[in-house]
Amino acid sequence: MSLDLRDRVRDVPDFPSPGIVFKDLMPLIADAEYFAETIRQLAAWARPRDPGFVLGAEARGFIFGGALAYELGAGFIPARKPGKLPRETIEATYELEYGTDSLQVHSDALSAGARVVIIDDVLATGGTARAKVELVESLGGVVAGLGFVIELTFLNGRERLEGYDTHALISY
Amino acid sequence: MSLDLRDRVRDVPDFPSPGIVFKDLMPLIADAEYFAETIRQLAAWARPRDPGFVLGAEARGFIFGGALAYELGAGFIPARKPGKLPRETIEATYELEYGTDSLQVHSDALSAGARVVIIDDVLATGGTARAKVELVESLGGVVAGLGFVIELTFLNGRERLEGYDTHALISY
Repeated sequence: MSLDLRDRVRDVPDFPSPGIVFKDLMPLIADAEYFAETIRQLAAWARPRDPGFVLGAEARGFIFGGALAYELGAGFIPARKPGKLPRETIEATYELEYGTDSLQVHSDALSAGARVVIIDDVLATGGTARAKVELVESLGGVVAGLGFVIELTFLNGRERLEGYDTHALISY
Repeated sequence: MSLDLRDRVRDVPDFPSPGIVFKDLMPLIADAEYFAETIRQLAAWARPRDPGFVLGAEARGFIFGGALAYELGAGFIPARKPGKLPRETIEATYELEYGTDSLQVHSDALSAGARVVIIDDVLATGGTARAKVELVESLGGVVAGLGFVIELTFLNGRERLEGYDTHALISY
C-alpha cells in the first residue's frame, strides 16, 4: 500500500502574506520514506512520457526535479531567476500579484525535439508553469508533460496549461 | 571505467564579476550519464557515513542534495535564504566579499543526534559550508561529513572545516 503523501504536508496560515494558507512540503521532503515515495510516484507518471530531460525552477523545483531526473536517468535543466546563469540565456516573464518576474534557461540547454518533463512542487495559478512551457518550446523542445506534487485546484492553473499533459500527485 | 566528471565542467570567464572564472556545472547536470555518475560518487562517499539526512542550500545544493538524499534513502533538509521558509527558523550568517548573508533552516528540522551529510556543488572559501555546520550543530545534529562536487583548493575552504570529514569529487 502506498503512503498518503498528505500526511506530510503542513498547512501554514498567513504565509507568505495574511490570508494565504501555505502548503509546506518540508516535512515530506525531510521524511526519507515519503520523499522517496513522492519521487517514485512522479517517476511512474513521467517514465512513459519518455523524457530526455527534467526541467525545474529554483528553488523547490530543484529538489524534486533533481531527484526525479536521477531516478529517470534523464538530464536536469534548471530554470533560474535572472542573473544566476553564467552563459547566454533566454527568458520568459510571468505575472505576480503585483508586477512581474522572469525565469531564464541557457540558450543551448536543449537540442531541437528534446522531450522535457516540467516539474514543480505546486501548481497554483499556472503562471510560472506557463513560463517554463515557453522556455522549452522557444528552444525547440517538446513538453512531454507537467508534473506537480500539489495542485491547488481553486486557482485554476490547469486552464493555462490546456492542451498539455498535466498531472498532480495531490489535489486540494 | 568511470567517466571523468571534468569533461562536463565548463569555465566561464568573468562571472559573476570580472576576473573570476566560474565553474559551470550545468553541462554536467544536463547530461544524464554524468549527473547520475556524480550522484553515485557522492553516494559512495556518503553511505558509510550513515546519514539520516542530507542538508543542502539553495539553489544548486538542492539539485545535488535532493538527488543524493533520494539515492541514499535519506531525508532532505533545505537551507534557505532569509524569509523563504514558512515556519520558525534558526539562522547562521556568513561573510561575502562585501557584507554578509544568512542561511536558515526550520527550528524543528532535526532531532538531537541526527546524522547529517552537508552537500554543495562548490567548496570555495568555506563560508557557507561553515554556516551550514553551525545550523546542523545548533539543532543538536551531528555533521557526518561535507561533500562537494568541486573544490577550489586555492581558496583554502578546507581550513575553515578543520576537524570535519570533507570530500570533493573534483579539485582545481
